[in-house]
Amino acid sequence: MPELRKDPVVGRWVIISTERGRRPSDFVPEPVQPRATNCVFCAGSEDKTPPEILAGRRAGSPANGPGWTYRVIPNKFPALRVEGELEPTGEGLFDRMNGVGAHEVVIETPDHHASLATLSPDAVADVLLAFRERVLDLKKDARLQYILVFKNHGEAAGASLEHPHSQLIATPIIPIMVTEELAGSAQYYEMKERCVWCDIIRQERRAGRRVISESSGFVALAPFAPRFPCETWILPTRHRSAFEESDVDELRGLAEHLGDFLRRMNRVLKDPPFNFMLHTAPLHDGALDHFHWHLEIIPKLTKVAGFEWGSGFFINPVPPEEAAAALRAGTA
Amino acid sequence: MPELRKDPVVGRWVIISTERGRRPSDFVPEPVQPRATNCVFCAGSEDKTPPEILAGRRAGSPANGPGWTYRVIPNKFPALRVEGELEPTGEGLFDRMNGVGAHEVVIETPDHHASLATLSPDAVADVLLAFRERVLDLKKDARLQYILVFKNHGEAAGASLEHPHSQLIATPIIPIMVTEELAGSAQYYEMKERCVWCDIIRQERRAGRRVISESSGFVALAPFAPRFPCETWILPTRHRSAFEESDVDELRGLAEHLGDFLRRMNRVLKDPPFNFMLHTAPLHDGALDHFHWHLEIIPKLTKVAGFEWGSGFFINPVPPEEAAAALRAGTA
Repeated sequence: MPELRKDPVVGRWVIISTERGRRPSDFVPEPVQPRATNCVFCAGSEDKTPPEILAGRRAGSPANGPGWTYRVIPNKFPALRVEGELEPTGEGLFDRMNGVGAHEVVIETPDHHASLATLSPDAVADVLLAFRERVLDLKKDARLQYILVFKNHGEAAGASLEHPHSQLIATPIIPIMVTEELAGSAQYYEMKERCVWCDIIRQERRAGRRVISESSGFVALAPFAPRFPCETWILPTRHRSAFEESDVDELRGLAEHLGDFLRRMNRVLKDPPFNFMLHTAPLHDGALDHFHWHLEIIPKLTKVAGFEWGSGFFINPVPPEEAAAALRAGTA
Repeated sequence: MPELRKDPVVGRWVIISTERGRRPSDFVPEPVQPRATNCVFCAGSEDKTPPEILAGRRAGSPANGPGWTYRVIPNKFPALRVEGELEPTGEGLFDRMNGVGAHEVVIETPDHHASLATLSPDAVADVLLAFRERVLDLKKDARLQYILVFKNHGEAAGASLEHPHSQLIATPIIPIMVTEELAGSAQYYEMKERCVWCDIIRQERRAGRRVISESSGFVALAPFAPRFPCETWILPTRHRSAFEESDVDELRGLAEHLGDFLRRMNRVLKDPPFNFMLHTAPLHDGALDHFHWHLEIIPKLTKVAGFEWGSGFFINPVPPEEAAAALRAGTA
């Protein structure tokens, strides 16, 4: 019998479809295997990208040359631009605003064939520290309300370049999905005076069935009502609303945990294309008791079709308990 | 300069990205070209599908044999099942319900190589009348709250079979996207005492720039804040909240208009994969002054990636004014 499940934060229902029941190992996505031909993100091609904003560099190595471990650059084809004032205008009943914001790329390593799953924990931590540094810097810009850090890995997950990289887009508006998480978690907090994600972590740890791994202050869970097969959330076990408030030790913990999770995922799902998205509190909200930052990871295993686009309901053929069991067993 | 635009009904913002600016003709999706090998939906294979629920048949031809123009059958791998009672249960802070509902397939023609773009207006009208008849029948089931009629055309749009077909899924819950449209349009109605879609139609007709076509009581528009390149809405010009209240003449008008639109789209975008989704009022809401049923059509031209999944913000590289101009010029 199929089952309907409701996300306790945003109230979105999903269908866990047993008729179409599949095991995590049934999916055979095209494995992501970089080939490296004329890559503009590789070491030695620094002059082919816009000038770097930030980089991890060997002492003395000049900007925009070799000698780096990671580089942050503006996106050459930005979705939003840093220049200009916000100018809301109307067109009859419609509202528009010019596209002020920022769009940056974090090149995670000079090595085309490496990835966050194969880099050392120190190198992954450096990438996470770069995310933090960019968020803290962009936060000074009062026009910006939110920063989404995300990753597209593999063509099927929307990556246009195969060299390991992640991105951030800063927006002058709080995105609707974050607004929904904020509203849902505020409502829960009002009733219970507890953070809903803290409660989820507590309940899931006790039950164990949807826990994938726990280490270094972080827990990886298969959410109760996942939209996608093997969707995973990584959360700090201690309450914290803003990613950028994390200290170096916490980000080192996340680096260990994330590397471990990605190796499990790559083993079980055979190097799948995937996305990750960092959900954190809006830039100017201060510390929130009801919001808990987390990283959402979605391997790209199925196609989203008319039913999902038309309803916002997702059909997921893999119960999260099975996904968690497979990923838990898939030792890193 | 990129531009942010807000959907006036649900408040979702999109980025119209000029940096990545593309014309509709720049996209080269894999054209959908049916090949027909061992198709279970073709004439002569009626015994390979579950028994038909409804069919357009030559007088005297027996059910589940040849002699049909369209057939409605239960989906062999239903996302939801008709059997059983709704039993909401809790698991700590989580909510679940057993997956009661219905999942049917409308085989639109016995001809594997035909489509709603090539069938006669009468044959398309018969398919639309079949949608109406199934909705009216399923509406008698008090457990069901909503029916989403939709189509996946082409593998990239999520179709697993290439034979021309559409589907409907009846759910015991009103989907979140419909809830959002209902809430947004009710709020608008409360302020203005007018239907927001009636206002959109009025404004767009006056401006003209986003109108693709108008005929037979229907208008095809490129919405002001489209999520996807060449996204199109087809709306009845006269206010009506429930699709199933349409009379035969109205559905004939829709058949003409939809066929015309699909031929334009196929010409301009070269037979792209696409989805359509019918947004109509919930089954038991009666006639609503604030809701206006409409068909949303999305050609599958781009990949949805981490930014969209993480934020609910969509980046659309084609301004709807350009999409409308191209589709308007692409004579059917």
